[in-house]
Amino acid sequence: MALLEPLVLYTAKICPFAHRVELALAETGLKSNKDFERYEIDLKNKPDWYQPKINPASKVPAISYGGPKVTGDQPSSESTKLAESLVLLEFVADLFPNSRLLPKDPVLRAKARFFIDAFANKFAPASFAFQGGKSTNGAEGIFSGIEQLQDLMAPEGLAIGDGKDFTIADAAVVPFFARMEVSLKNDFGVYPEGEGKKAWETLQTNGRFARWRKYWETVKARESFKTTFDEDYLTKQYSTRWTRA
Amino acid sequence: MALLEPLVLYTAKICPFAHRVELALAETGLKSNKDFERYEIDLKNKPDWYQPKINPASKVPAISYGGPKVTGDQPSSESTKLAESLVLLEFVADLFPNSRLLPKDPVLRAKARFFIDAFANKFAPASFAFQGGKSTNGAEGIFSGIEQLQDLMAPEGLAIGDGKDFTIADAAVVPFFARMEVSLKNDFGVYPEGEGKKAWETLQTNGRFARWRKYWETVKARESFKTTFDEDYLTKQYSTRWTRA
Repeated sequence: MALLEPLVLYTAKICPFAHRVELALAETGLKSNKDFERYEIDLKNKPDWYQPKINPASKVPAISYGGPKVTGDQPSSESTKLAESLVLLEFVADLFPNSRLLPKDPVLRAKARFFIDAFANKFAPASFAFQGGKSTNGAEGIFSGIEQLQDLMAPEGLAIGDGKDFTIADAAVVPFFARMEVSLKNDFGVYPEGEGKKAWETLQTNGRFARWRKYWETVKARESFKTTFDEDYLTKQYSTRWTRA
Repeated sequence: MALLEPLVLYTAKICPFAHRVELALAETGLKSNKDFERYEIDLKNKPDWYQPKINPASKVPAISYGGPKVTGDQPSSESTKLAESLVLLEFVADLFPNSRLLPKDPVLRAKARFFIDAFANKFAPASFAFQGGKSTNGAEGIFSGIEQLQDLMAPEGLAIGDGKDFTIADAAVVPFFARMEVSLKNDFGVYPEGEGKKAWETLQTNGRFARWRKYWETVKARESFKTTFDEDYLTKQYSTRWTRA
């Protein structure tokens, strides 16, 4: 597949929201820094031009699309600037309607979007609360969130439909599962020491999460995941970010 | 336009989220209780079957689609049940790709979705806070939210593109503006008496909101709005819900 217009993705390796869009672009077959420019933003030291010229909200991900072919650090006023990770996932799916990032069937498309909604409302708040030491019931919120997502998943393979196609539903959740794995197995969080490792052990062994484990294996084996996720980098970053006193 | 499968919309006149979907269906030209069944759920006294058979979250809106032709109160296990208002807006747009509920151009589609995101993050929290007496700067949050939406609007007409087509961006925000009007002009809220009316007067006269006023006139003149919004009903409901002590 090929792009009709120049595209720059402003992203950051550490950011799960930005990772969503990297996955979607990878799944279309586009090559980073060949078919589009991948521009890493240092979130702790953003370029001066980023907020005024690319994203007024100053967050990643953002996309510059169209206009003259320019480098990411020389943004043109003639390109369209787009932001918000879920908007961008739909945008990539719209650019490549044959990529299978969204099923053709309206009911399955609704299920993909409902899955993302369930992730945002059931899993994400519990996961953030746990890592931030604000959970009142340990990792149970994470476990329950995963079970609720399992209930919405295809019986095998990926999340939606017959489980064969990687959709925006997968792109939306995978970056957060990847960061959860790194966090839990290294005990990166402000919960009592050992609770992360214990939760990860439970996720790895308890029958409640059998479907999720297979899902996670399936995802991690994909080229799109391997080329967009840098576990060593994330581990290093998180090790300084989540220091236990 | 015609539906290929039976569709029941579970809705409630009072609910802005449900109203979103009523607007989208009306804009496709489908007639309520002719082309699809409109099933009013009494939110204070929901039917016993609603939560187990239609929506586990027990909220409106929900859609039953497909399966045998049955009445809304006799749901079939063979139909698909869908929920979440934004998921349903996309679903209606997907059922009727020629309805113009979403533009064809991927960039304009992204702008429609970004507009909804801006509404949800900039306007809605401020509006809820004001009505609930939790705003620390009076109606300024509402005013600022409206200005931010104005900045994203087409120069005239409806929200997106050339302003000629009613899109899911309009469907997503209109129900909330309609309820804001009823609330402010009747002073329905737990803020100090008179503050609602004063805010409405400002919205009606201040040059800051000229674009929004024209937008709001354009929307209110549409058949889809007139047939889906019952101002008298809402005024009566709100008058008992937001009683000032």
